[in-house]
Amino acid sequence: MTVNLRAIEEYLCQLATEKVGPIIKSKSGTQSNYELKTGTRAVDIVTEIDKQLEKLIWDSLVEKYPTFKFIGEESYIKGVTKVTDSPTFIVDPIDGTTNFVHDFPFSCTSIGLTIEKEPVVGVIYNPHLDLLVSASKGNGVRVNGKPFDYKSNIAGMSPLVLDKSVVALQPGSAREGPNFKIKLKTYENLLSADGGFVHGFRNLGSSAMTLAYIAIGYLDCYWDGGCYGWDVCAGWCILNETGGRIVGANPGEWEIGVDNRSYLAVRGCNDDTGEEQREYIVNFWKCVEGNLKYE
Amino acid sequence: MTVNLRAIEEYLCQLATEKVGPIIKSKSGTQSNYELKTGTRAVDIVTEIDKQLEKLIWDSLVEKYPTFKFIGEESYIKGVTKVTDSPTFIVDPIDGTTNFVHDFPFSCTSIGLTIEKEPVVGVIYNPHLDLLVSASKGNGVRVNGKPFDYKSNIAGMSPLVLDKSVVALQPGSAREGPNFKIKLKTYENLLSADGGFVHGFRNLGSSAMTLAYIAIGYLDCYWDGGCYGWDVCAGWCILNETGGRIVGANPGEWEIGVDNRSYLAVRGCNDDTGEEQREYIVNFWKCVEGNLKYE
Repeated sequence: MTVNLRAIEEYLCQLATEKVGPIIKSKSGTQSNYELKTGTRAVDIVTEIDKQLEKLIWDSLVEKYPTFKFIGEESYIKGVTKVTDSPTFIVDPIDGTTNFVHDFPFSCTSIGLTIEKEPVVGVIYNPHLDLLVSASKGNGVRVNGKPFDYKSNIAGMSPLVLDKSVVALQPGSAREGPNFKIKLKTYENLLSADGGFVHGFRNLGSSAMTLAYIAIGYLDCYWDGGCYGWDVCAGWCILNETGGRIVGANPGEWEIGVDNRSYLAVRGCNDDTGEEQREYIVNFWKCVEGNLKYE
Repeated sequence: MTVNLRAIEEYLCQLATEKVGPIIKSKSGTQSNYELKTGTRAVDIVTEIDKQLEKLIWDSLVEKYPTFKFIGEESYIKGVTKVTDSPTFIVDPIDGTTNFVHDFPFSCTSIGLTIEKEPVVGVIYNPHLDLLVSASKGNGVRVNGKPFDYKSNIAGMSPLVLDKSVVALQPGSAREGPNFKIKLKTYENLLSADGGFVHGFRNLGSSAMTLAYIAIGYLDCYWDGGCYGWDVCAGWCILNETGGRIVGANPGEWEIGVDNRSYLAVRGCNDDTGEEQREYIVNFWKCVEGNLKYE
């Protein structure tokens, strides 16, 4: 099967900006009725609009690419839905649902495609900032449709080293148990004068927007656990195309799949050998306290 | 002395958008040489551009308002510079210097005026987002020059309650000692299923942008210690004009000055009696572990 990734990217950009984005923008901050997805000890919000938009995207993709599979946040069934080698759209209709409910202008739509489990197309659109970041494998990155030259963008920046970096984090929805404790202790380790001593944390409440910002060079890395494939798939492809890299959140997890559930995403840098990036990852992992395990 | 606050607001808006903003935007991410302000155990960055812009703002204000006093982040002298009852411009030429160094698009300029120690004019301009938020006492708020109706903006939103709120935080530059520990433990208390159980944290790396976002209704509150008057003065006036309120970061600190160094800023809400807001503040303070003390 021959697949024109650049054409798919174009189609997804159109879908995101023309159909999905305007609805996210117009409904942001209007959904005071929402459900908590998982029990009473976690904060994971879903609204009617998430479900409507997933159907809209699904319908649109099925019509155009009838043989491709589809995984979406809202239709996902735990233990049943799996990423296979088939071309598979992996979609978060609204990434940053808490942002969406609160009208914080960092909700976005995130549409990715994997082939043989590898993210090969990624489209992220934030209608509040009117920011569209897209990529396809081997074709580089576009910001609002214009080719984006990552290397020249970061040419004047400091090297990628832990104690000069800005780290994106999200405490996430689980608020008790070992993962919660590991996250909090890792935050302390990263900040501490005796630890990572990083320049600071940033928290945007959207994994997709965070990955897009790393790809642009606004942030140095993102460490999280508890995400799903739809949170990272589109951003993963975009990041790859700017020399960025995603590994596991825990030490030694150099090779992971889209559905790993815990991630460390690191920006590209001016050292093309990959050594600076590898050293950064190893130093980051030294601050990770314990082992994030999500099922 | 009769002072036309609305005219001062206009003048500061022009200064921020025409003179200061373009320089922040053009120099963002280009300053790989910077100083760490305070010793080796804290991360507090200052660049040449901070100093140049403070001089530019100062010169411009002295020319127009020669009798007013001026307090700026870069020219501040600990123990000497004090907020008095005189009309005083309190200025952060670049709020979010770490953002500025890393090209994270949330650096901004923040220019406030106090009279009798009260913030009565506030102008915040983020040139990356081209977002100008301004206010003067009794004259309401303008976003990019257009009158902003906060009440209708939040009419459809959830009530202001702790376990449905999004909290802005910044770990800050001090990375050891009691304040650092208090912050980390308070974060845990706010998140925990047995504590505040808030919807989430957001961290933008700029106090001024955070206060502007609260005033617009994007965020519910902001808790921080270690800030200075120039971080909060402009945002304080803007927040006041949307029914928001700033109290101290520690329990019981209902009335504080601009130079308090630790703050809890809370958005306005649909309950005009103030009761919902007071209850929110009291519930927030229950999550504060210990007593933030800055000198």
